[in-house]
Amino acid sequence: MKHFPFKSIEGSVTAATGFKAAGVFCDIKRLGTGKGSNKGQKRDLALIVSDRPATVAGDFTTNQICAAPVKICVSRTKRGLARAVVVNSGNANACTGRQGMRDAEAMAKITASALASAGVDSITAQDVMVASTGRIGVTLPMANVRKGIGLAARQLQASIESAKHATEAIMTSDTRPKEIAVEFQMGGRTVRLGGICKGAGMIQPGMSPTGARPALRSLHATMLCFLTTDAAIDAKTLQTALNEAVAKSFNRITVDGDMSTNDTVLILANGMAENEPPALKSKEFEIFQAALDHVTLQLAKKIVLDGEGVSRFITVRVKGGKTGAEADAAARAVANSALVKASWCGGDPNWGRIICALGYSSAAVKEAAVDVGYSLPGSREIVYALKRGRPGSATFKALCRITTAKEFDLHIDLRQGKAQALMYAADLTEAYVDFNKGDVNDPSTLAG
Amino acid sequence: MKHFPFKSIEGSVTAATGFKAAGVFCDIKRLGTGKGSNKGQKRDLALIVSDRPATVAGDFTTNQICAAPVKICVSRTKRGLARAVVVNSGNANACTGRQGMRDAEAMAKITASALASAGVDSITAQDVMVASTGRIGVTLPMANVRKGIGLAARQLQASIESAKHATEAIMTSDTRPKEIAVEFQMGGRTVRLGGICKGAGMIQPGMSPTGARPALRSLHATMLCFLTTDAAIDAKTLQTALNEAVAKSFNRITVDGDMSTNDTVLILANGMAENEPPALKSKEFEIFQAALDHVTLQLAKKIVLDGEGVSRFITVRVKGGKTGAEADAAARAVANSALVKASWCGGDPNWGRIICALGYSSAAVKEAAVDVGYSLPGSREIVYALKRGRPGSATFKALCRITTAKEFDLHIDLRQGKAQALMYAADLTEAYVDFNKGDVNDPSTLAG
Repeated sequence: MKHFPFKSIEGSVTAATGFKAAGVFCDIKRLGTGKGSNKGQKRDLALIVSDRPATVAGDFTTNQICAAPVKICVSRTKRGLARAVVVNSGNANACTGRQGMRDAEAMAKITASALASAGVDSITAQDVMVASTGRIGVTLPMANVRKGIGLAARQLQASIESAKHATEAIMTSDTRPKEIAVEFQMGGRTVRLGGICKGAGMIQPGMSPTGARPALRSLHATMLCFLTTDAAIDAKTLQTALNEAVAKSFNRITVDGDMSTNDTVLILANGMAENEPPALKSKEFEIFQAALDHVTLQLAKKIVLDGEGVSRFITVRVKGGKTGAEADAAARAVANSALVKASWCGGDPNWGRIICALGYSSAAVKEAAVDVGYSLPGSREIVYALKRGRPGSATFKALCRITTAKEFDLHIDLRQGKAQALMYAADLTEAYVDFNKGDVNDPSTLAG
Repeated sequence: MKHFPFKSIEGSVTAATGFKAAGVFCDIKRLGTGKGSNKGQKRDLALIVSDRPATVAGDFTTNQICAAPVKICVSRTKRGLARAVVVNSGNANACTGRQGMRDAEAMAKITASALASAGVDSITAQDVMVASTGRIGVTLPMANVRKGIGLAARQLQASIESAKHATEAIMTSDTRPKEIAVEFQMGGRTVRLGGICKGAGMIQPGMSPTGARPALRSLHATMLCFLTTDAAIDAKTLQTALNEAVAKSFNRITVDGDMSTNDTVLILANGMAENEPPALKSKEFEIFQAALDHVTLQLAKKIVLDGEGVSRFITVRVKGGKTGAEADAAARAVANSALVKASWCGGDPNWGRIICALGYSSAAVKEAAVDVGYSLPGSREIVYALKRGRPGSATFKALCRITTAKEFDLHIDLRQGKAQALMYAADLTEAYVDFNKGDVNDPSTLAG
């Protein structure tokens, strides 16, 4: 990849010109969820608004059981225009039937009218995207939601602090907010792009623009990501760029192999940088793509690092697959094997469980052809545990020096072809089990 | 299923007429494995021998990475005749290259000559089946193996106690021996059938007679099972019966969704009951099948109950699948979801994670059609948490009364067709992670 000059800047969804945000507390978490249950007054409703109508693109869970807000976003994304995003945490509004659809529609309507009251001109419910995360199967406490939207509409600001409030408001079991912003030149104009996301559990996204299942299947967990940019870019081109970015970032992560009902990535582009909208494959488009790739990849990695109970971050790099689908299947089999993930928790460099997982994947694998090696992030030196199916010459200690690090890369060569695949994965820890088993005597700790 | 009159009897692989067994200590575990590492002097080599040549059938892992002893068994099973089985624990002899094949062949040869010395007439290496379980990627300590085989050959007995020694010798992380025997009438003769098995981790078998991948894919963990009977039954009929029994038992269990390199089920039938060999589909064959089904199912359930860290046993019953493959995919998605399994650990009756897993499975699922219910084993009363996609009327307490039990059944109706599938599954506990993460400062605790 060519190096494109973009620089990191402070902030997130309000970094781009013409975007405001707010994050407020309206007591949805306590009413709706165990995860991230609200002992104090944690913010649980976020609003992101553009001063001008923006083009919009989105990618959504391919789970057949998908939440009401996802259904609404899928249909509104096709329209290609949006003005605002309203998000609640603490309640997923998933498996809530017709009431859930009515509630999601109402969230958009209430937001449009609250924004109109707050002075946003000519906004309708159709301009409002909706997202939810939290407990499954419980209808939204709409009185609280209504109160929260009203509060948020009055608190909207373009400040870094208000974006931080929005970031906090979308968190569930996340332990820290996840945000990023960059600035770059595009067609002689300064463009900004920023975003926020949340993750933690039920994480192995496999999104597509329509929620329709792609040929290459994958799993997920609830992750939400909201991106804003002041670039001028038409909705179709924006969707192309987003698909490409998501394919290389959020669709390559796994915490626990479970694909959520609510995974959502949205990007709003309001054109206030006043650049010439880039044509597909133009140099300007490539710059935008590179910036978007960077932003989504950094956010995706933050989700894995902050996954439930995660103590180690492993980049699984498979090469030599017969086909892309096979390389992907091999990488996912390793990244989701309970035994491999438990061994990562212990920092174990042994390769037996890895080759075992490769062997039961749907990828063609030949024992005598497989390499398994390790490297520290950024280092070019791969230390091999297995070379062509036989133990490598590296000492146990040399291997452990890498695999007991907080982050390392696992290199697998199948030598069956030329296809590659990559997954960003996490270990499986006792803390993950402890968090997710809950306590039946305190239903607020349970999963919904 | 009709009720066939077979009765439980004491013992296992020596219950049938004409079978002897032994289990000895030859220090393979300490040299080869972390799992079940040998602090005391745990038996680690087993021998099972028939007084007369027996017909043999087998089912083996479909993992592409398969151990040397599995390769040997696959080829010998085709021949249809066997006399003895030699098994070691502590070392899987998997991913050991050509040396591994030489060692597995040597195990058979050494066994044949030790048995010849011990008075077994006209036995060759071709008559000896070989199995291994334990650490992957380390070659066998052949001096120890040779010593162990010599010892075992001298200690062979038809007693219940010697069969117990064999059962102990095949254990790795198992906490208790798993054995069973039954007696039944077949063509006017009294026939006996018994067996032993081991499991614990890397458990989701998907075996086939040749190790070739069946159309219906599945995963696994190392499980070994050795069955003996004095029934007279030809090898082809025996293989048919075994395939059927394995499909309904070992291929329906999962502890952690990992399919092992070594999964092996073998049955030897020596004809000493002197019954008329049953023809396929005859009444006599059905009696034999029912007895074999019972024996393999009981052994398979014991593997799940004694799985690493397992605290709860769940029977996942899916009906209403569009096809058998879809019903199976739905059952496996639920049975292997990290989030569902963690919630089982806590005794959580919530259905959100269950419907989420169904939604990302390859089965067609419609939210408004799905039922999720629970029952205690043996009870006909299903208490529904979800009915046609909406929460059922049962109280949380009523659901918990079932899901906090040590064993319960999970009933899922997809209402998309008439196909059914069933999985015997386990919860995911902190103890599983603790056991499998090992300790890099004590390599004997690691996975290989």
